[in-house]
Amino acid sequence: MLSVEEYRSKFLSYLENFESPKNPKNLYEPVSYILGLKGKRIRPILTLLTCDIFNDKYDNAFDAALAVEVFHNFSLVHDDIMDEAPLRRGNETVHKKWDLSTAILSGDVMLILAYQLFENYSGDTFISLAKLFSKTAIEVCEGQQMDIDFSKKVDVSADEYLKMIEYKTAVLIGASMKMGAIVAGASEKDQNNIYEFGKNLGLAFQIQDDFLDTYGEEEKFGKKIGGDILENKKTLLFIRAKQLLNTSDSENLTKLYSSKFTDDLNKISEVRSLFEKCNIPAIISAEIEDFTKKSFEMLDSIKISAEKKQFLCDFGNSLMKRNI
Amino acid sequence: MLSVEEYRSKFLSYLENFESPKNPKNLYEPVSYILGLKGKRIRPILTLLTCDIFNDKYDNAFDAALAVEVFHNFSLVHDDIMDEAPLRRGNETVHKKWDLSTAILSGDVMLILAYQLFENYSGDTFISLAKLFSKTAIEVCEGQQMDIDFSKKVDVSADEYLKMIEYKTAVLIGASMKMGAIVAGASEKDQNNIYEFGKNLGLAFQIQDDFLDTYGEEEKFGKKIGGDILENKKTLLFIRAKQLLNTSDSENLTKLYSSKFTDDLNKISEVRSLFEKCNIPAIISAEIEDFTKKSFEMLDSIKISAEKKQFLCDFGNSLMKRNI
Repeated sequence: MLSVEEYRSKFLSYLENFESPKNPKNLYEPVSYILGLKGKRIRPILTLLTCDIFNDKYDNAFDAALAVEVFHNFSLVHDDIMDEAPLRRGNETVHKKWDLSTAILSGDVMLILAYQLFENYSGDTFISLAKLFSKTAIEVCEGQQMDIDFSKKVDVSADEYLKMIEYKTAVLIGASMKMGAIVAGASEKDQNNIYEFGKNLGLAFQIQDDFLDTYGEEEKFGKKIGGDILENKKTLLFIRAKQLLNTSDSENLTKLYSSKFTDDLNKISEVRSLFEKCNIPAIISAEIEDFTKKSFEMLDSIKISAEKKQFLCDFGNSLMKRNI
Repeated sequence: MLSVEEYRSKFLSYLENFESPKNPKNLYEPVSYILGLKGKRIRPILTLLTCDIFNDKYDNAFDAALAVEVFHNFSLVHDDIMDEAPLRRGNETVHKKWDLSTAILSGDVMLILAYQLFENYSGDTFISLAKLFSKTAIEVCEGQQMDIDFSKKVDVSADEYLKMIEYKTAVLIGASMKMGAIVAGASEKDQNNIYEFGKNLGLAFQIQDDFLDTYGEEEKFGKKIGGDILENKKTLLFIRAKQLLNTSDSENLTKLYSSKFTDDLNKISEVRSLFEKCNIPAIISAEIEDFTKKSFEMLDSIKISAEKKQFLCDFGNSLMKRNI
């Protein structure tokens, strides 16, 4: 096994040498641009290290890892249009730097390029990768649609919210790992367990992301604290608080969440104290803990050495501590 | 073999019974909507009849035919956004009836659903279909990008134009037929010849489409005559005229093509007389004839009965006579 940093640098070298087609320039330049923006590359790292875990040959997994990263970036390009986001990783988004048509079409071609990368695998491996990929990609679209729908919906249940983040974020983490296992020729049982490991870790990570958006430290989290509150985002913190608060506090929370002012710092502290009134920080921390535990339990029945299980736990813990 | 009308009605029954997922509603309603709009269904008909030509079992090709139709409709939804088109087949376009996000995301999910339909084929058939599909889909995106680029480009050569319509339109006609041949288990040589038959017929059809836009009869063509001229579209008629006219006439044509007025009926007749001055109607008709001939020649070496070759020629001729 290599270190996470080493997998990242191996992947980055592979990405650099990847020759996407060159023409038409206006179609492929945005592809290179978005893939070249600095990112953590967590998904392709997971594909490589999972392959390594199962058969010690991570270099077989480069194309699957790249497919996952290309797909992830496709979804960023199209999501940024829908969110009207001007910036991505501190740089202009594709639809801002070019235009709407370019962002749509370059995104489309990335989705197809991702499928094409599986052609570097033969027979059953190709088929397994493509099937998993289609299933996952459809779920990611469904998750994105749910997220859009929730912004207009009054009552979002915790189950609906959890399904949304499972589809929008967690399944791709699971699939990134399962693809590594498929390339490594792991048993179907191991493939499914590692998928569940990744998916539950992804859920824990996303809920923590929402938690840190309200309760994190700005330097460590890397974003302004309170953004979700200012945007009235119905995260798990909000949904649980609505379940737990008494009628008058709950109405207050709803009222605060109807404000359109996105620079109201008072609102952040008022929402926070309502959250604290019903013990949201402890409750959400426990839910994060539950998903992390569930994730780690998936390792029990996987047929790999204790050292490799430890490696995956360490990886999971660093990810949750935002050290990766 | 069935008649074209029978293949169409078989396909429409299959389409009607196709259950795309239902939820989230906002993601899948636009999918049913666009697939339900009346269209000629030429591509899926080609898949079915080609399968029938090679092994008399067209019903094996329903899912491949549907994949082609779903992909075609994906490209319509995204192209309509880029063209800011309000209407498609006389009905509101998806981005008008819903909104931009819906049109992007529903388009994305259709592209993935198309791939997923190949999962109904086993082993090598799945792989061949998916590879052909990815190659074709990438070319369609490249063709769309070239089309966008040409609208801003001063000089477009005939070769560039032909490459654009080959990618944007003709390869999908070729691929629709090749998919039928793949499902039927035809030899690779036959697969490639039928692809070339379809591709060249697609080129002939598209050039004829441009020709009829200027020289057709309104009732038969189904669109207002002169639209391309009013929109300054650099079709093969324009490109050939620019090559053939003397300097002063050529400058006149360029000047006419710089007008932004899209209701200038004088412009149509002025451009037409410049076209006629250099014999464009006869020249373009000959080019259409060349591609049609090239298409039919591809049938020579295909291992099918003379009756089936005749069937394909009749199909090609009806298509070119706009009787299908």
